[in-house]
Amino acid sequence: MASKLASSNNYSLLLQNPHHNHRGAAGTNNHLRPSAASSPKIKPLSLRCATTAAASPIPAHVGEERIFNFAAGPATLPANVLKKAESELYNWRGSGMSVMEMSHRGKEFLSIIQKAESDLRSLLNIPEDYSVLFLQGGATTQFAAIPLNLCSPDDSVDFVVTGSWGDKAYKESQKYCKPKLIWSGKSDKYTSIPSFDTLEQSSGAKYLHICANETIHGVEFKDYPNPKNGILVADMSSNFCSKPVDVSKFGIIYAGAQKNVGPSGVTIVIIRKDLIGNAQGITPVMLDYKIHAENNSLYNTPPCYGIYMCGLVFEDLVAQGGLEEVEKKNKKKGELLYNAIEESNGFYRNPVEKSVRSLMNVPFTMEKSELEAEFIKEAVKEKMVQLKGHRSVGGMRASIYNAMPYEGVEKLVAFMKEFQAKHA
Amino acid sequence: MASKLASSNNYSLLLQNPHHNHRGAAGTNNHLRPSAASSPKIKPLSLRCATTAAASPIPAHVGEERIFNFAAGPATLPANVLKKAESELYNWRGSGMSVMEMSHRGKEFLSIIQKAESDLRSLLNIPEDYSVLFLQGGATTQFAAIPLNLCSPDDSVDFVVTGSWGDKAYKESQKYCKPKLIWSGKSDKYTSIPSFDTLEQSSGAKYLHICANETIHGVEFKDYPNPKNGILVADMSSNFCSKPVDVSKFGIIYAGAQKNVGPSGVTIVIIRKDLIGNAQGITPVMLDYKIHAENNSLYNTPPCYGIYMCGLVFEDLVAQGGLEEVEKKNKKKGELLYNAIEESNGFYRNPVEKSVRSLMNVPFTMEKSELEAEFIKEAVKEKMVQLKGHRSVGGMRASIYNAMPYEGVEKLVAFMKEFQAKHA
Repeated sequence: MASKLASSNNYSLLLQNPHHNHRGAAGTNNHLRPSAASSPKIKPLSLRCATTAAASPIPAHVGEERIFNFAAGPATLPANVLKKAESELYNWRGSGMSVMEMSHRGKEFLSIIQKAESDLRSLLNIPEDYSVLFLQGGATTQFAAIPLNLCSPDDSVDFVVTGSWGDKAYKESQKYCKPKLIWSGKSDKYTSIPSFDTLEQSSGAKYLHICANETIHGVEFKDYPNPKNGILVADMSSNFCSKPVDVSKFGIIYAGAQKNVGPSGVTIVIIRKDLIGNAQGITPVMLDYKIHAENNSLYNTPPCYGIYMCGLVFEDLVAQGGLEEVEKKNKKKGELLYNAIEESNGFYRNPVEKSVRSLMNVPFTMEKSELEAEFIKEAVKEKMVQLKGHRSVGGMRASIYNAMPYEGVEKLVAFMKEFQAKHA
Repeated sequence: MASKLASSNNYSLLLQNPHHNHRGAAGTNNHLRPSAASSPKIKPLSLRCATTAAASPIPAHVGEERIFNFAAGPATLPANVLKKAESELYNWRGSGMSVMEMSHRGKEFLSIIQKAESDLRSLLNIPEDYSVLFLQGGATTQFAAIPLNLCSPDDSVDFVVTGSWGDKAYKESQKYCKPKLIWSGKSDKYTSIPSFDTLEQSSGAKYLHICANETIHGVEFKDYPNPKNGILVADMSSNFCSKPVDVSKFGIIYAGAQKNVGPSGVTIVIIRKDLIGNAQGITPVMLDYKIHAENNSLYNTPPCYGIYMCGLVFEDLVAQGGLEEVEKKNKKKGELLYNAIEESNGFYRNPVEKSVRSLMNVPFTMEKSELEAEFIKEAVKEKMVQLKGHRSVGGMRASIYNAMPYEGVEKLVAFMKEFQAKHA
């Protein structure tokens, strides 16, 4: 894509580019460290750039040919977090190792996972009687683990299904308990969320399962039901840490990291401690919450580098002022994009009921559907990628997670207006 | 550790340090790329260093305060692979994204996972009738997945247990089939491997399970049994890609990546295709090989960055000349270390039968066990870390996987001799 630029090995950029040392105070920039083994044949040229590096106000996401990536997950990450990871990749904070090389039982990695948990607890204000587990296998693994841990085979559980992911969770649970679909938005193409008061819950249901934000259909719970029977369990993969949540209302919150808080390969489970310890006999040891809780997520080797990256993201969210501030930014971005759709006089369309439109995933179609392919293609030329909608719903989808800058949504909206003007 | 050096923000090092562009030809060094948005206020200083960067023969593992890390896993990775990952972290090959941000269904990541599989197939000469799966959850998840996929609950399978990991696999399988322990080295503290011809296999056994290299006990199969009934299944987590293997002798080979081929969080399963498709009804969808094989490991979001890192390691192993060359290096390292133990007149001791000593994990104790703590502590001062033995066996353990340079073993052996001279 930028091959002409890439072929130039011009070091001037490093010296003028303020991003390289964007987190200079916190990062150690180990790869710039004097080397004991540097070749004596090459005369060093000394250039101190610390002041220069701190002087520029250019935000980290600009420059270096960074694109705006609207993928639904894995998704864009904060540029400053990536820069910090880059600076520490080869030698983490003077340890002489990459995080990828550290024993998961060594003091270096223990400090990383403990800091990650502590920052997450502070962000979500997680009560003491909840365990935080860093696991593997994505939300899909939890679709099995939850009934295996909470139910006997004959126990009933309830599902309110507002999109494809909730439906997958429902189907997987059929292997391990007796789930009941007490509401499904399928006939309505998953465009709404029911009023919970009107629904009849199964008597003796062990839990009520919801998907807090449906990544494919762009439907998001704005408040949460209070189940009369059992506990509330929520898949928050695609809106985790995008706004404050009252954790005490839930028995289990679980989320794949690869939308808002890190790379793929890490799954976070927040579970009330009294729910742990009753797994069915057929539960694989790696799906048993008791094993992971007792071992602080270190029963076997965890996905160490992914947990480290999540930790950097949590640190960044704390530095932004916490989830109240993050939510404000997300509301502003969502408003900008939904308004653009509303004000297009039907040129662009979003099918979801206004009150439950997702602030994370915005699917939209065009009145003239034959233009959609061109829209997506032209957007790529403008360095906005992954705008194609999920194959099951078609059209377009803009995922605008925490790390999507406001400027990215502005650019998309400007492009949408231009495209409309050209094709109206 | 190197805080004095770290506080100096002297860019001259980058210019003189040959490691920074160690893989200049292959890597793109994206973070050095001219930025479209560079600040106009800062005058660029242009310095072309490509020739300088390529000129030095200093190996990548030297310098920059890199330590020798003898951890059993996660473990040391090739320094040049880490340098390449560093150079691509922020912007992968001009894509404008980090690998951590890429959609797993986008063309960029598809090229990464396909190249990784293709290089692994070439390294191990994997026949066409085998699937290669990139999964999550470590070998421990496979301890359940294998019987769930290969057996009905009443099927018998055989285990030859030569260490703690094989024992864990045996115990987990009891949930899903009828395993039989046809040999265990436990009473002998796991120091040997039986002659398979003398063992009686269960009639109708679906498979024979072995752990090809026991990480904790340092016991390694040098050739493999031919089961009379069923197929051979091997956990190769800790010697995967350390030497050539005739894959066609196995039904399943599986391995966590975090010893020889990448960071933790990736599990590789190589399985003969005709074994796929008969999972028990209670199998979690994420443990069903059919789902992963049909979807080329992309049923849900895979651990993308970990797979990318494995791909870089595979590329490096190919560049080294393949596994025959890698095995030669490993034999040389193992010989050096075991000879030092043998020649210590009992000062150092390895309990394992000579013919099956592991070339990957070398546990050893001291005649004067009260000196062991001091040995480990003094080694850290010499920048050799993670030499403490597993808590279940005590003493020391040096893990000398593919990425441990010969110089690391030389340094350890010199240290051992010095230590002995001081305490003899």
